[in-house]
Amino acid sequence: MKIVGVGCGEGMLTEEGERVLAKAKVIYGSGRSIDLVRAFIPAEAEVFEITDYKALRTLPDDAVVLSTGDPLMAGLGYLPGEIISGISSMQAAFARLHAPWTNVAVVNAHGKNHQDAVYRVVHDIAAGHSVFLIADPDFSVEELARSLPESVTIAVCEDLGYPYERIAEGTAKNPPKVLSKLFCIVAGYNEQ
Amino acid sequence: MKIVGVGCGEGMLTEEGERVLAKAKVIYGSGRSIDLVRAFIPAEAEVFEITDYKALRTLPDDAVVLSTGDPLMAGLGYLPGEIISGISSMQAAFARLHAPWTNVAVVNAHGKNHQDAVYRVVHDIAAGHSVFLIADPDFSVEELARSLPESVTIAVCEDLGYPYERIAEGTAKNPPKVLSKLFCIVAGYNEQ
Repeated sequence: MKIVGVGCGEGMLTEEGERVLAKAKVIYGSGRSIDLVRAFIPAEAEVFEITDYKALRTLPDDAVVLSTGDPLMAGLGYLPGEIISGISSMQAAFARLHAPWTNVAVVNAHGKNHQDAVYRVVHDIAAGHSVFLIADPDFSVEELARSLPESVTIAVCEDLGYPYERIAEGTAKNPPKVLSKLFCIVAGYNEQ
Repeated sequence: MKIVGVGCGEGMLTEEGERVLAKAKVIYGSGRSIDLVRAFIPAEAEVFEITDYKALRTLPDDAVVLSTGDPLMAGLGYLPGEIISGISSMQAAFARLHAPWTNVAVVNAHGKNHQDAVYRVVHDIAAGHSVFLIADPDFSVEELARSLPESVTIAVCEDLGYPYERIAEGTAKNPPKVLSKLFCIVAGYNEQ
């Protein structure tokens, strides 16, 4: 099996990803991931939208599985097989902010205890990291902001990779509002 | 100016990166970055190997600058202009290890105080992160290993993206040897 990261938006498939798709006979992916690489799928390939994620482990050896972003960043990289890296939403977020991620710490708050995630962010920023937080719709930016020193930068990156993506920047004192259910947070970054 | 991440090895240029290069008239890059994307450089484009990194800030608006890996990960992303993300050595390292980076913390030890970097790694691993460390030739894996609990996984990833790349895995108790000057370290990862 090959697990191909298709990136978090249009135009992010790598040359290696293209080569794997060009030879693929059986392709599995979410509707979103299939849409992103449709132009590179051979006419004769069989394409299946994934309905049962548990069944993916038993796919044949020559199957190609698409994963949005990078398969190893909250993606399908837990499946056995070769990983083809893709551009993750983390990279897109830092690119929009024009901020380096040479010192980033990633905190996954999606479906996790949010208080614990806030604690981790506070801790990582105190240790000198910038933080990329994978949020879920219920995560409160205000609560995070209240736990951080006032001057710490906070950006909300919504619907990254979609035509209607939105970046809102602020600080812990004046945190940005969240307007979408699909968002991530960058905190403690330094624009260049 | 556009700063294009060309990835850390062959075949990692994205579709968007290809599109930018296809229209480029003036391209600047290191010898390595130019080699990686030579097939995508138009015959009529002027290509310059960078000799004076300071002069890059004053390049014309239509110049394209190549950056190996991702421009915002220890790359040329500090230059003004649009960033096109690329696959970084961090992603390649985790892909080779088949380990998720959903909880990674990046520590940059390149040209920095190594004792301080070791302290940061110990701290980040205790906080639940896996760590990607950007090393320089003098960084001691043995010294890092002595500071970590014995069971912590340590991998040395050498010459990532080159045909002769090498991955050596161990633990803090039995750390892998370093055989190259170009390497990075992943610690506290969990293979899947």
